Amino acid sequence: MKACGIVTEYNPFHNGHAYQIEQIRKNLPVDVVISVMSGNFLQRGEPAIVDKWTRTKMALAAGVDLVVELPVSSSTQSADFFAKGAIQILGDLKIDYLSFGVEEGLGKDFLNAAHWMVENESLISQKMSKFESVNVPYAKQMEELLNQLAPSFPLSLNSPNNQLGFAYAKEIVRQGLAEQVELFPIQRKAVRYDDPTLHEKISIASATAIRQAMLEGRQIEAYIPSESYGYLLEKMDQSVTWDDYFPYLKYQLFLQSESSLRNIYQMTEGLEYRLKQNIKDASSMEEFLEGIKTKRYTRTRLQRLLTYVLLQFSIEEVEKALAERPSIRLLGFNKIGQRYLNENRDQIQSPFISNINQETKDQLRMDILAGEIYTLGNKKIKKQDFTRHPIKFD
Amino acid sequence: MKACGIVTEYNPFHNGHAYQIEQIRKNLPVDVVISVMSGNFLQRGEPAIVDKWTRTKMALAAGVDLVVELPVSSSTQSADFFAKGAIQILGDLKIDYLSFGVEEGLGKDFLNAAHWMVENESLISQKMSKFESVNVPYAKQMEELLNQLAPSFPLSLNSPNNQLGFAYAKEIVRQGLAEQVELFPIQRKAVRYDDPTLHEKISIASATAIRQAMLEGRQIEAYIPSESYGYLLEKMDQSVTWDDYFPYLKYQLFLQSESSLRNIYQMTEGLEYRLKQNIKDASSMEEFLEGIKTKRYTRTRLQRLLTYVLLQFSIEEVEKALAERPSIRLLGFNKIGQRYLNENRDQIQSPFISNINQETKDQLRMDILAGEIYTLGNKKIKKQDFTRHPIKFD
Repeated sequence: MKACGIVTEYNPFHNGHAYQIEQIRKNLPVDVVISVMSGNFLQRGEPAIVDKWTRTKMALAAGVDLVVELPVSSSTQSADFFAKGAIQILGDLKIDYLSFGVEEGLGKDFLNAAHWMVENESLISQKMSKFESVNVPYAKQMEELLNQLAPSFPLSLNSPNNQLGFAYAKEIVRQGLAEQVELFPIQRKAVRYDDPTLHEKISIASATAIRQAMLEGRQIEAYIPSESYGYLLEKMDQSVTWDDYFPYLKYQLFLQSESSLRNIYQMTEGLEYRLKQNIKDASSMEEFLEGIKTKRYTRTRLQRLLTYVLLQFSIEEVEKALAERPSIRLLGFNKIGQRYLNENRDQIQSPFISNINQETKDQLRMDILAGEIYTLGNKKIKKQDFTRHPIKFD
Repeated sequence: MKACGIVTEYNPFHNGHAYQIEQIRKNLPVDVVISVMSGNFLQRGEPAIVDKWTRTKMALAAGVDLVVELPVSSSTQSADFFAKGAIQILGDLKIDYLSFGVEEGLGKDFLNAAHWMVENESLISQKMSKFESVNVPYAKQMEELLNQLAPSFPLSLNSPNNQLGFAYAKEIVRQGLAEQVELFPIQRKAVRYDDPTLHEKISIASATAIRQAMLEGRQIEAYIPSESYGYLLEKMDQSVTWDDYFPYLKYQLFLQSESSLRNIYQMTEGLEYRLKQNIKDASSMEEFLEGIKTKRYTRTRLQRLLTYVLLQFSIEEVEKALAERPSIRLLGFNKIGQRYLNENRDQIQSPFISNINQETKDQLRMDILAGEIYTLGNKKIKKQDFTRHPIKFD
C-alpha cells in the first residue's frame, strides 16, 4: 500500500484541508492518507479550539485514513523542531509521499533548497550567530542571510506555510528520507493563510477566520465538510481559547520566583523578569502579551513560552524529549488505515501507543499532563487520555 | 492606655462579635480594643468569604480600635500554632487583657488548666505519641488523655471555642505573659458556634450560618451591625468560597508529582497519593474532600493541607516562619488605635509593617503570595498588598 503523509493541526478541519486530501487522491497513486496531528496544544503556542478527539473525528469523516498525535514536546515548537518530530513519525510510518500546503513552489524547489541548506548548515549557523544581539526575529534574519549567500535560492520563505514546508523538506533530507519520500506541495486555494475574512462566495476560509467566526457565534457551516461540521457542532460548547487558561498562567506566575522560571524551556534573556513584572496588572492574555512584547520576539514565540510556563515544561525535560524518538500515539483510523497499520506495524521503530494505561503512561507523561491541563479550560471537556481509545471510523 | 486583645477572623463580622466588644468595654477598664485578625486564608483551611480589607472596615465600624493581620503561616494552623502567632503579636502589642469567646469556663479555669498543661508538657507529649498509629483526631486523643491524667481538670475541651481559648491561655503561660495579661473569657450568647440556622427572633447567628445565608442570597442584615453591614454589602459580589479556588488546586495537583508534593507542609503518611488519585475525577471541592477523607484526619485538617498545596507552602518555609517572630502588619485603626500605637510603637520588638513596598516585601512573601492567589477567586477582588494602605477610620 502506498501512503501519503500530511502534517496537520486541523484547528478546526475545514474545506481547505478537504481540498488538500482531494488533490492528493487525484494526483498521487496512494491508498492511504496519514495525518500526524498536533494534540491539544499547537504550533503557535496556543490551545486547540476543540480537543484532539473531535479534530480526529472531523479528519476521519473527511477522508483521512489514519490520525496519529504529534507529541506536545514537538507540537508547540517553532518550525524546525515541529517538523523534526512530525517527519520522524511519518518516516517511521513509511510514507511514500509528503504533502503540504504552500503559497508557491514545486516539490523539486523545496528539495533542492533543503539539500543546499543542509549542506551549508554549519556556515549558516555560524553566520546566524552574528545576528544574535539584534532585535530581529529569526525568520527575518534567515531571509536576509539567504539574500546574501544564495541569491538564486529557489524558494520564497516569506510566508509561514512556505517556511513550514521548507522545514519539512530539510527534515526529509536530514533524516535520510529523500530517496524514499516524494514531496508534493499543494498550492493553497482561494485565500491566503492569514486572510481574516469569511468570503461569502467561496467556500474556503482560513482556520483563523473560522475560529474567529466560531467565537463570535457566526455561521461557519459553509466552510467545513458537512459530516466534519457535525462533529464540531457537537463540541461547540467545549471550545477554548488562551483566555480560558490565563487564570492558571497567572496563578503559576504568582507562585514561581524568577529563579525557578529560569528552568522553563525557552526562558531566555531575562524574560522571567518581564513576565513577573507584567502579570500583576494584566487582566487578559491580550493585555499580558501587549505588556511583555519586545521587538526581538514574535507574539507566537511568547505564546509558546507561556505554554511551557502553563504546562511547567523544564529545559531538561523538553530537551530530553526532543533527543529521543517520539512515541506514536494512535488517535483514529478507518478500515484502510487499519489495514495499513497491520501491514506495517512490524517495521515501526518508535514506541506505538494505542491506549494510555499504567504501562504506557510514563512514556507520554508530558502529553497526559497537557491533556489534563487542557480539560481545565472548560468544565465540559472530558478526560483526554486515560480511559480513551482510538476512534474507529467505519 | 489599657488594651484588650482579641484573636479574630471576622468571617464575616456579626452581632456576636459586636457583643464581645460591648462586654469588654462594659466589664474591663480598657481604652483600646486590639484585634489580631486572620488575613485572607483562615484557621479552618479556607479562604475568607470577603477580603481582609472589607473585614477590617467592618470591625472598625463596630468599635475595634486597631486591627493587625495574623500572618498566613499562623492563620491557617491548628489551634496551638494559630494561638502561638496570635499571642506573640498581642503580647508584643502590650495588651493588658485577652478576651475570647467560650462555651463555658472562667478566666482562672483557663489559666490553671494552662499552667498544669505547660508544666506537664513532656509527660503529655510522651503519652500522646503512643496514640499516633490510631485513627483518632488529635483533640479526641487529648480529651481521653486528660480523663486519665487529670480527672479534676478544670475545663471542658469539647468545643472548638474552648479548645482555642485553652490554646491562647497556654501561650500566655508559655510566652511568660501570665503576670501581665489577664484572661477574660466571654460566654457565647444565644447560639452555639456550630448552629447552622438563622433564628428569626434573636439577632445573633453563627458566622457559618451567616455565610451560608449569604451564599444563598438570603437576608443577613439583621445579624450584622448596620454600619459593618454596609461595608459587606459593597463587596457582596466579591465573595468567594473554596470552590472558586478548586480549579487552581486541581491544576496544581495535576502538575505536581507525588515526590514534589511531599515537600508541602503537613503532607504526611502517603496523603500525596490520595490527593493525586482522587483529583482526577473530582469536580468540586466537596466531592474531592469526600474522596480523600479518612478516619484519621478531620475535614479541617485536610482543608488546611489543601490550602498549603494551593499556596505551595513548603515544610521548610512554614517551619522557618513559625520559628521566627511574626511580622505585625497594620490593617486599620481609628484615632484611639493610632494614639495607642504612637505611645507603644517604640516597645514593639517585631517588624511592624504599614505598607508593602520594595523594602518590606521580602518579610511578607507568604502573605503577599496568599493575597495574590486570593484575588484569583473572583475577578472583582482588587490587589491585596502592594498599593494598599492601612484603613484610617474616623
